[in-house]
Amino acid sequence: MHTNVNDATTLDRLAIHTITTKPWTLPVALENYAAAGVGGISIWVEAIEGMSNAEVNQAVQAAGLKVPALVRGGFFCDSEASERARRIDHNRKLIETAAEISADMLVLVVGATPGEPLDRQRGWVQDGIEQLMPDAESHNVQIAIEPLHPMYAADKSCINRLADARMMCESIRNRMLGVALDVYHTWWDPDLEREIELLGKLDAIFGFHLCDWRVPTRDFLNDRALMGDGCIDIKGIRKMVEAAGFSGWNEVEIFSDEHWARDQHDFLADIIDRYSIC
Amino acid sequence: MHTNVNDATTLDRLAIHTITTKPWTLPVALENYAAAGVGGISIWVEAIEGMSNAEVNQAVQAAGLKVPALVRGGFFCDSEASERARRIDHNRKLIETAAEISADMLVLVVGATPGEPLDRQRGWVQDGIEQLMPDAESHNVQIAIEPLHPMYAADKSCINRLADARMMCESIRNRMLGVALDVYHTWWDPDLEREIELLGKLDAIFGFHLCDWRVPTRDFLNDRALMGDGCIDIKGIRKMVEAAGFSGWNEVEIFSDEHWARDQHDFLADIIDRYSIC
Repeated sequence: MHTNVNDATTLDRLAIHTITTKPWTLPVALENYAAAGVGGISIWVEAIEGMSNAEVNQAVQAAGLKVPALVRGGFFCDSEASERARRIDHNRKLIETAAEISADMLVLVVGATPGEPLDRQRGWVQDGIEQLMPDAESHNVQIAIEPLHPMYAADKSCINRLADARMMCESIRNRMLGVALDVYHTWWDPDLEREIELLGKLDAIFGFHLCDWRVPTRDFLNDRALMGDGCIDIKGIRKMVEAAGFSGWNEVEIFSDEHWARDQHDFLADIIDRYSIC
Repeated sequence: MHTNVNDATTLDRLAIHTITTKPWTLPVALENYAAAGVGGISIWVEAIEGMSNAEVNQAVQAAGLKVPALVRGGFFCDSEASERARRIDHNRKLIETAAEISADMLVLVVGATPGEPLDRQRGWVQDGIEQLMPDAESHNVQIAIEPLHPMYAADKSCINRLADARMMCESIRNRMLGVALDVYHTWWDPDLEREIELLGKLDAIFGFHLCDWRVPTRDFLNDRALMGDGCIDIKGIRKMVEAAGFSGWNEVEIFSDEHWARDQHDFLADIIDRYSIC
């Protein structure tokens, strides 16, 4: 039992992404997170398939959890303009969904399509986000660009550094647009501290995602580590974001075949235990 | 048969790294590269185990190939100062080896050790390289820092961007120190073109490595693609380095379980064929 009641060991600011405990349905996740005292749940689109937004909202409210984010929108990049338009429309629906399930923000993985120049793709992303901002404002849903690690540049995200997400925020200039900073994607960046400071000055740090980088990493997608089982100085990065003014959720987002194969109650207990060292 | 005899389709500037055809011993690789008209061979340390440097040099000269690089030195990072000193000494021996096998340069993978701050590790790297420069000068062997993709930041290289390699060159300021630019490690970088220009102004582009980024990539180490089978605009990057003044070797460096499992004669023929589109 923890006797230290500093900020790091209370669970008020701890949220968990539904994907982290993928074997659990949303109702099961809500029940178990709430029972464990976790304050928030970030909801993946895949977790609410087959439920109406009203049902989701009711379940979340009944469990007493907050919803930092609906995850994930974006995926703006396609060589065909008609397909890009279709995807922007889909993001409009996701903004509505976010509002209806009481999510503070929609997290964007901006997408990438192999073989197109990355700078051209970033133009498509900017165009898409600009078109979404009126919807974000009218629904009071924040939009958070999540830069993904450069190893996802080919087919998942053409925005791979905090600097590029920050420059897009500066270019679009809307108080509802910011960045979701995931330690997994950004820990290696020599500009990390400086970019966090710049984002703080913009009031643009909307989300802070936690997991760890396993050494060695065995899979491109599903081998993220529990905090403390990898090489990332999570506490150090948390200090940087808090020094930059961030006081929002600490969201645990772990994709791991290894952890998904475990008893999810044990995994949840480990997450809470390790959160105390973050 | 190619009738086009422009620079891209002659093999004078084509070199192949021995690791690319790993199933072949050095003598077999030399024989087959030479028979195919390939101009150069970059020799991995692993390929000359059990041979004296004089034997290697004799075999290379007999085959009529040039040796752009001995690959790989570096690996400077360790928490223990005594171990770091040992590794610097090992690099001194590699510089001697490079000179004795008629290699133009020693390529450095600078190393990384999980959990140590990356900026601290870069200090160890700079210290190591500074200590090696007199050896490089006296042996007339160039030293090339190869920035590795950020996905190798945990345990292989604490230098992950061209900018960081370039800044180290600027800091150390020695005409024998430059950079090996591998399209695999750098293609995603939004600063790629600018950094190539800056490196060109420093006369610091020493090596240019070719392969491709497979989509999806299935393995962190050994799933590089043959040129043309991935998403990298290799021809575009080659134009950038040549516009920046580079006129050296185009070195094919592919680690691939898939290609190593093939008949290596067929693979070599494919490399030569695809080189014509680079």
